[in-house]
Formats: sequence, C-alpha cells, structure tokens
Amino acid sequence: MEDTIAAISTPIGEGGIAIIRISGPRALEIADAIFVSQHGKPSEFQSHTIHLGSIGRNGDFLDQVLLTVMRAPRTYTAEDVVEINCHGGPLNARSILSRCLRNGARAAEPGEFTKRAFLNGRIDLSQAEAVMDLIAAKTDRAHAAAAQALEGHLARRIEEIREDLISILAHIEAHIDFPEEDIATDTREKWLARTDQVLKVLDRLHATAREGKILREGIAVAIVGRPNVGKSSLMNALLGEDRSIVTPIPGTTRDTIEEMANIRGIPIRFTDTAGLRIPRGTLEGIGIARSRKALQRSMLVIHVLDVSKSFSNMEIELTQLYQGKPAIQVHNKIDLPQKLKLPGRFPKAKTVRVSALRGDGIDELRDVIEDTVFSGRAGAFQSDVVINERHAEAIQSAMISLTSAMEEMRGESTAEFISQQLRAALDAIGEIVGKTTTEDILEKIFSTFCIGK
Amino acid sequence: MEDTIAAISTPIGEGGIAIIRISGPRALEIADAIFVSQHGKPSEFQSHTIHLGSIGRNGDFLDQVLLTVMRAPRTYTAEDVVEINCHGGPLNARSILSRCLRNGARAAEPGEFTKRAFLNGRIDLSQAEAVMDLIAAKTDRAHAAAAQALEGHLARRIEEIREDLISILAHIEAHIDFPEEDIATDTREKWLARTDQVLKVLDRLHATAREGKILREGIAVAIVGRPNVGKSSLMNALLGEDRSIVTPIPGTTRDTIEEMANIRGIPIRFTDTAGLRIPRGTLEGIGIARSRKALQRSMLVIHVLDVSKSFSNMEIELTQLYQGKPAIQVHNKIDLPQKLKLPGRFPKAKTVRVSALRGDGIDELRDVIEDTVFSGRAGAFQSDVVINERHAEAIQSAMISLTSAMEEMRGESTAEFISQQLRAALDAIGEIVGKTTTEDILEKIFSTFCIGK
Repeated sequence: MEDTIAAISTPIGEGGIAIIRISGPRALEIADAIFVSQHGKPSEFQSHTIHLGSIGRNGDFLDQVLLTVMRAPRTYTAEDVVEINCHGGPLNARSILSRCLRNGARAAEPGEFTKRAFLNGRIDLSQAEAVMDLIAAKTDRAHAAAAQALEGHLARRIEEIREDLISILAHIEAHIDFPEEDIATDTREKWLARTDQVLKVLDRLHATAREGKILREGIAVAIVGRPNVGKSSLMNALLGEDRSIVTPIPGTTRDTIEEMANIRGIPIRFTDTAGLRIPRGTLEGIGIARSRKALQRSMLVIHVLDVSKSFSNMEIELTQLYQGKPAIQVHNKIDLPQKLKLPGRFPKAKTVRVSALRGDGIDELRDVIEDTVFSGRAGAFQSDVVINERHAEAIQSAMISLTSAMEEMRGESTAEFISQQLRAALDAIGEIVGKTTTEDILEKIFSTFCIGK
Repeated sequence: MEDTIAAISTPIGEGGIAIIRISGPRALEIADAIFVSQHGKPSEFQSHTIHLGSIGRNGDFLDQVLLTVMRAPRTYTAEDVVEINCHGGPLNARSILSRCLRNGARAAEPGEFTKRAFLNGRIDLSQAEAVMDLIAAKTDRAHAAAAQALEGHLARRIEEIREDLISILAHIEAHIDFPEEDIATDTREKWLARTDQVLKVLDRLHATAREGKILREGIAVAIVGRPNVGKSSLMNALLGEDRSIVTPIPGTTRDTIEEMANIRGIPIRFTDTAGLRIPRGTLEGIGIARSRKALQRSMLVIHVLDVSKSFSNMEIELTQLYQGKPAIQVHNKIDLPQKLKLPGRFPKAKTVRVSALRGDGIDELRDVIEDTVFSGRAGAFQSDVVINERHAEAIQSAMISLTSAMEEMRGESTAEFISQQLRAALDAIGEIVGKTTTEDILEKIFSTFCIGK
C-alpha cells in the first residue's frame, strides 16, 4: 500500500459536481503538482480545509475546483487524502483524473479506498460491506439495514459471539496441559450449555439471511395476463407515489419490461412478460421461451384477469405456466359490470379484487405481496441486523464446527480435540468482520464495489 | 433569493460519493438540525473546513458523512453554502436531501445555484453558460473551448467591444446637446472608421458560432452499406483508443445503433442504420422510414463498400438515399484480393481506401472526416473563444444596429439618431455577459442546466 491511488468517486454522468479522490503517501505532492491557487500549495494547507483554485492555468487550464486536504490518520482510508471537487461531466472529471495519474497516482481498483480503510483498521469487513449495501439500497428498509451495519451493529453482535467463544475456549484449553486427567461430567455439561447458547444466537442470526437477501437483491415478480386485462395499469398503480424512486433497468430484453418498485420497503422487480400476451391465441412463438425464463426466475407470479370479460380457456393455459410457484390472482376492473365466472376446474390461488384505474384494492394487494414474499412472517423479520450470504456461509460453517464440538463434549474427546473445533468456529465467525479473512475473500468482496469507493 | 435551496449536486447513480448542496441564509441552521458530530455544530465551524459526523443518530441514523461549511461571500453562490459528502447511491442521497427539505430548505431548480452565482455578481452570464458546456463537453476540443469561456476569455473580449462602443458613444453624445450644429465630415469619418472596426471584430466572433455548435452538439454521421461490408468493424476502428470515452446513447430506436465518438476533437454521433442493411435484397420495409430519417438528420454520410466482392446495383440504390449530402465512400477490405469494379454511372464522392480489420487508412479517413465537417477550414477555427447560438443572435442584432448606425453616420442624421443605434448595439452585446438580460432569457438559459448546479 505504498502507492497513491486516484479515482473519480462520483457516479459517471452529467451532474453539477464530480469528485476526484486521491489517497496515499504522495497525495499532497500530486495535488501540489496540478493545483494552482492564490491560497498556496495543498501541502501547506491545514488538514480538513477546503480551498478554491484551478487545475492548471492559462493554456493548461482545465477547471475551477475546490480542493480539500485531509491528512492521515483522520481520513476515510487513514492515509493522506485529497479530494478535488470539480464541475461535473464525464470528460472534465476524467481529464483531471488523467492529470493525477500523469503526476504519479495509480488508478484505483474498485473498492480500493474502502479496502485500505479496512486494512488500516478504520472499519471492519462488515462495515465495508455495509458501505456497498448502502450505496446499492433500493428501498428505505434496505437502506436502514445497511445503515445499521455501517453504524457497527452487526460488528458488535459478532464481537459478543467471539468473546463468548473465546471465554469457553479459555476454559477448555486450561485442560489441554493435563491430557491424562479426565474431564468431569459437570464441566462438560457446563461447556455444552454455553456452546449451545452460542449456537442458538448463531441460528437466530443465520435466519436473517433470507431478509437480507430480499432487501439486497429484491424479489422478481412476473405479471402475466391476456392482452388488455390491465397489466400495465396495475403495474403503474402499484408503483404509485413511489414512482419517483423507480428505475427502469437497462439491458432487459425486448420481450419483457422490467421496473424496480418499492412495495412496503421490499425492492421488487416487476416483469411484464410481453411474450405471454399470447398474440394470436396461441402459446407458441419465439417470445415464449424468454417469457418462460422470466417466469422461472420470478419468486412470485401475479396473474391478472379482467372481471368485465367472460372466462376464456386461455386463463387456464396461463395458470399452467406458473404451476407450483407462489401466485396471486388479481381480478381487475371491478369498477365495470362483472361478467367473469371462473369454472370449478380453474386452479385457485390467493385472490385480490382491484380496480387498477381507480386504485381500489391496491393497498390490499401490497399487503398480500408483502405477506407472500415473507412467507407470512413479515413481522418476524425487522431484526436490527440482517446478514448477507457470505456471513450466512461463515455462520453455517461455525455452526457445523460447534455442533461437532458439542458431540465431542458429549463423548470422551480430549480438550485438545474440542478446542480445535471451537477454534474453527471462532475463525469462521472472524471472517465476517475480517479478523481471519484470506486475501482472495477480500479480493472477491472489494471487486464488487464501484470504482472510487 | 431569501430562501435556502438544496439539491443533490452529483450525477444520479451508484457511486462512491454523493454531494448534497445547501445554499442560502438558513444553510447553517439546517445543517445544525440534521448533522451530529463530536466536533460541534456546523454553525460554529470555521469557514472552509470539513468535518466528520453523521446525519441523525441511533434510530434516526442515515449515514456517516463529511460536512463542509463555506460562509458567504467566498462561495459558489456568494451565499452561505453547506456541502454534505455522503456515501453514493440514489436512495441514500435522496434520504439526506429529504431531511434538508423537511428542515426548511426548498428543492433547487435546475441551474439555480449557478443562477444565484450570476445574480450575486460572482460570474457573468457567459461564464455561467461555460459551466454547462464544460459539464456537457464530449471531447477535449469542446472541453478546452468551455474551459476558456469559464476562465473569462469571452467575457473579456465582450468587455473590450463594449468599451470601444462606449468610447464611440461618448464622442457622439457630446454632439447631442448641440443639435443645431452640423457634424463635420471628418468627425463622421472618424466615427465610421471606428464603428467599422467594431463591426469587423463582431464579424470574426460571429464566425466562431459554427465551430461552437459543432463542438457543443456534435455532428451526426450515418454509416450505410450492404450487409457484411464491415460497417461495425469500421465504426470500431474509428472509435479506436477513444473507445474509453464512447458513451452509448440510450433511447435510440431498435433499428439504428448510435455511438458517440471523438474524431480529432469533434464529437461525432455515428448511426449505423440497420434498416439500410437491405435484408432481403429490397429497399422496402418498415425500417426504411426510420433509416431515411436518420440519414436526413445526419450531416455526413459514410458509404462503406467491400472491395473483395463484385459490384452490385444495390450500391447505386444506396447512393440515391444520400443524394446531395456530403458523403465519403469508404472502400473496405483492401487487405483481401480486389474484385470490386465501379461502373462509370456510379456517383462519385470523396473516396478513402481502408482495411478496418488491420487499421490501414483509418487515420486518413479521420482526416477526411475532419476536413469535411469543417468544410475544408479546420485550421481556420481554433480561435480562443467560440460562441453559442444565443451569443450569435445577440452579435447579429448588434451588427444590424451598427450597420444602421453607419448608414446614419454617412447621411445627415443627428447625433441623437446615431447614438440610439449604437446604444441598441451596446445592449445587444451586453446580453452576452448578462448586463442587459431580461428575466425570461435567464429563465431559458438556466432551465437547461442540470439540477444541483
């Protein structure tokens, strides 16, 4: 970490301000080389002050900027940091970054600033991950979970568990030096009880992974229905006032439309499967394969029926497409005279009656969606910490080791064998906060970050 | 301007850092209400210092942030300014902005910060426009032009012209108080010579509008050709190392592919007209209407021919599509054995022989494109200032007034009439820097800005 890194830390695009961040031992020297100001040189500025100046002058002039100097160790990376606030715009920021690179900085890899913050001990690994979750958060609920991890809630919980394990280990390892002495039954039972306690805590924590995954990745919901039953209107009604935080997802296929919505704090990717509009009264066609894939990927299917039209056998064909999936049947257009009569052979599912046009029943539909997504346990979640898949794997590995340890405690195993299992559990738990994390795991985590973070 | 405005000043998207900017008399009070730090309250911080803290705490906690206090008048808007650097991500930045709005800020309109900078006399109108040009710049050449305007080059040029006009006016108006006295012929001739001098300066400045428009808006170039002649390879070869600054343009139709490229500093939008791939040997089809439109919008057509294939009459049909447009015929695949023989009736155009695959001839093609875009006057441009259409209109209006003034100087008009024309010219010129700009012109200029600038 002896080199100095630089990157554009704001999103790429046209915007008022962009930030170029420089971190490392040569940050101030590089700033001196490119920044011109009547206030003097960056290396002479007091820490945590901001100064007006320009990048270059005369023929060399690039932009008027504000330059902030933050000296180690009270900085994001715990190294010397210089931030240049320039006018936004991809080319402008890139030109200034180039000048930093020409003067001795290296282009930062994705997540490298946060990685340095972690390696320099300013934050632990769970907080580093929380940074990325916070940035990617699509709903308030996801944001709140990430903010709590960033504040260190998960880290503290993990630290408590580690302390418990270390204290049990201390007891057990006191016996290692006397391998010929038998361990008394009541000692073994004390260890068992305390280990079991830790196992229960881990189990509760592990259960939050599902909510974590939902909040982080969202839920894919496919909307199916015959043409003109009001699929788009229903989608719009569900998006409602949250429309402002809806982001169309680029790169989706031409046959499906995806929109990100926020339903009760759950990030939901609605897919309107155009291929399933069954254009010529047939389920054959090119679009079908793609639509089937979208259906397969979805965690929940919303089947929209028009109650103002007579029943069509095509509705039954549609239900066959989502057999076995959690599904909600939405009876739309209840504001119109009702003609739809479902035959007995029509497969039943949870049903909600709505008028997408007037908004009737939409709130009830939101409730049903939330309830279905959380398998009827919506209230059960809302813990103050939720973990991610990496944490879940580490916890599972720790739980396996603890279970083995308990078996050995119950049997005739020596303290040494028991202690090995507990140490394995301790290591696994330590991976969550980065106490025992290998370089390739770090590589994997930080490579998912954005550049400049 | 008594209210306090706030906005997210960085582009929307996932990125390391986002900035929420607050400007106005209540900026510090609002910061006090939402920011928690062990370093104290924003209203107590020294100007131009930056502090670590958080937005909210405990259940209310949103994010760890860096907060900068800049007190009037040494700020972007010349008002009190607070900038909050938070973790990036659309939702996070929006949540913090909401908290600012709930505590008394008003959501800033597009360009409102820069408008305040202008209204408070910190920058003139040509510099405000340069800010937006800098942000939108797609090539180094466009960036350099904007940077020079931001540095005040255009403003100084305009100021010189205004001073010349005012000095002529002073002479002329000295005669107004003596309307019965005739103005001597040699006096009139002096005025004429000096006004003519100004007219010439204005004319040269006006001529930069074309380069300004090209640099600002870019040039649409359509690439046409039969299937497999190497249109995509040619596009890629032209993009070359500039690939890194190529931005795919969202929202283009499915029938055409647009890519922004930088050819000799000229921003070029290449359109590969898929509809003109003439799928079944016919020019009929749905895509044709769209492709014709793309062709009509383009300023230059590149027709790609494959020299390794025999001539096809379809090539002639293609030339009919771009009749009358500036066009370059590119003979591709010169690395293969040559079969193409153009018949005498084939319409001629500038021709460049290339191998898109090996890169042969690509630099020559770039030269020919630059030359064609600038109508053979590429070297003639490169002035240190380039103006925009609004400036061009103002200059044209000033030139009309000066021409009228000169006619009146040549005739028998009184000093009063002549002075009226000169004053009209002075007003028109003043519009460029904002000395004489009406509220609706300001409205029009700043509404094209991005939010947060």
